[in-house]
Amino acid sequence: MQAPLVVGIDLGGSHVTAAVVDAAGTVWARAKRDIDRHKPAAALLGDDVASTVRDAVQQAGLSLREIVSIGMGLPGNIDRARGVCRFSPNFGWRDVEVAKPLEQVLEVPVYLLNDVRSHTLGELHFGAGKGVASFVMLALGTGIGGGIVIGGRLLEGSHSGGGELGHITVEPDGPACGCGSHGCVEALGAAPALARAGREAVAAGKAPGLAALAGSPEAIQGSTITQAAQAGDVGSLEVLAQVGRYVGIAVASVITTLDPDLVLIGGGVAAAGDLLLEPLRAEVGRRCRMIPEGATPIRRAALLEEAGVMGAAALALEACGHLPAALEHCVHAPSAAL
Amino acid sequence: MQAPLVVGIDLGGSHVTAAVVDAAGTVWARAKRDIDRHKPAAALLGDDVASTVRDAVQQAGLSLREIVSIGMGLPGNIDRARGVCRFSPNFGWRDVEVAKPLEQVLEVPVYLLNDVRSHTLGELHFGAGKGVASFVMLALGTGIGGGIVIGGRLLEGSHSGGGELGHITVEPDGPACGCGSHGCVEALGAAPALARAGREAVAAGKAPGLAALAGSPEAIQGSTITQAAQAGDVGSLEVLAQVGRYVGIAVASVITTLDPDLVLIGGGVAAAGDLLLEPLRAEVGRRCRMIPEGATPIRRAALLEEAGVMGAAALALEACGHLPAALEHCVHAPSAAL
Repeated sequence: MQAPLVVGIDLGGSHVTAAVVDAAGTVWARAKRDIDRHKPAAALLGDDVASTVRDAVQQAGLSLREIVSIGMGLPGNIDRARGVCRFSPNFGWRDVEVAKPLEQVLEVPVYLLNDVRSHTLGELHFGAGKGVASFVMLALGTGIGGGIVIGGRLLEGSHSGGGELGHITVEPDGPACGCGSHGCVEALGAAPALARAGREAVAAGKAPGLAALAGSPEAIQGSTITQAAQAGDVGSLEVLAQVGRYVGIAVASVITTLDPDLVLIGGGVAAAGDLLLEPLRAEVGRRCRMIPEGATPIRRAALLEEAGVMGAAALALEACGHLPAALEHCVHAPSAAL
Repeated sequence: MQAPLVVGIDLGGSHVTAAVVDAAGTVWARAKRDIDRHKPAAALLGDDVASTVRDAVQQAGLSLREIVSIGMGLPGNIDRARGVCRFSPNFGWRDVEVAKPLEQVLEVPVYLLNDVRSHTLGELHFGAGKGVASFVMLALGTGIGGGIVIGGRLLEGSHSGGGELGHITVEPDGPACGCGSHGCVEALGAAPALARAGREAVAAGKAPGLAALAGSPEAIQGSTITQAAQAGDVGSLEVLAQVGRYVGIAVASVITTLDPDLVLIGGGVAAAGDLLLEPLRAEVGRRCRMIPEGATPIRRAALLEEAGVMGAAALALEACGHLPAALEHCVHAPSAAL
């Protein structure tokens, strides 16, 4: 066994994944289970999440005593110092204690971070952001999250809101967003918007390949659209291009603001690859005229399905000093309570 | 005399200003002259700019030997290490040597920075950004410039483009911008857009107060509109509110990206004060829903007319070690050549 070992937890809206990871970023074991996100938080954490951690540790042939720390990424606004989730629309949480209930049953210090900020840490230590001083990460999934690294540090912001890139306005009078604003890139470029555009293309008779592949409109998802587009369905290609253009407007605003070394695009929707990224890059090229065209590379993130647990593991490894810290691991961290 | 003394130069499109400033931010003397920005750069710098510096130094009762360094802010993309202006649409410059011609005649090291980034440094050391860890500055003038401080450091970006906030898209299909893109906040919220909107309001018979005040449509400027609005002209108030809303969309995108402690609004257009800032704040309130409403103060910058020279003086003072450095004053700095 190669110490130190940590556990990274990725808590999503429909399932939780945990992985045992070492400081080199090697995954020793993983476990996953479906969850009911409407369950009371204490039960969800103390039961489902804790059991998933135990499963992963057991599969690695270890006991919890051999795990030095646990990192956890979850969607929402996180108060790291208190180990509390201030606000998570996905779980319907407001000021929910997350670290403490887990620490009580697992007896290992638990560190929290927003899921896409955690993914960004993962890219920094183990992925496409390794050795890059400043980069921006956008994860296109059910929502759109983001993370920003400047001078090797993860930007947290004044209210833990730094990098909330899904809520950049791309159409001032655009559709309502879950956040309460209008025309956010999340409302126009995340998976639900992609699926809706796909259904509209099918209804308008513009995407016969997609219609045939999906069978029924309800079965249309981001992955179906990508598959149909890869097979040459013109309507599906246009749907991906439109999403690429919307995300491109947001990426252009971020590049204009920060002039980073690199932009990474991750999340499930990014599986469309260049069918999405080429229209995105073209939109950025049209809008970012103050720096040389193409000066900022825009690439797919490296970690893919492992992004959640690897990011959370990077957080845990940083917190216990086994990776160079990209953020301040505060003195009020939950470990002090153990 | 209270050492050290530096000179700050503000080079604008129609005139150059120089001031002798000490480390406490006290202005000892200033000088200003009109310039012809289409003159060859070498003549403009070696003659007009250098003479303005000599005038300011003389008025302070000093000689150039008593000046430890010179800072200069100018609009455009600056290569600080080489003392070169890479690109300035205002002057029509591409890769123009700026520091060296000045150093040759003045025999004092000269440090360059983009004008609004320089203004941002001024706010950091002497103005409304003093003691604030992270803030964003927007200067609304003939164009819209910006500057960003994160963790007490001025963000420069990968291609000296960090903080080019005037080129954030606020209307994807909006009017053409000087940069080559469309719907940038600069195209909709800077002084020329304000004047155009004022002329349109007058032509539509909606701003009788403005029409009477200006006399002729050609005489309508930002300041005329502000004056008419202060006197209660409804059309002028609406023109300012519309500009405030456009700038508010850009500010909302920047807050969403960075979650700074503070946003400062400067430049000539900001003289409209709350007539502009209230609609701007309201737009930000509608769009920034991921952090508590009103959590990010949005205020007028403090330095006003002195912003240019004070910022340039702050740059000079930083470069010679008399103020804590908010940016790396590179080893290839022009001073090495002296």
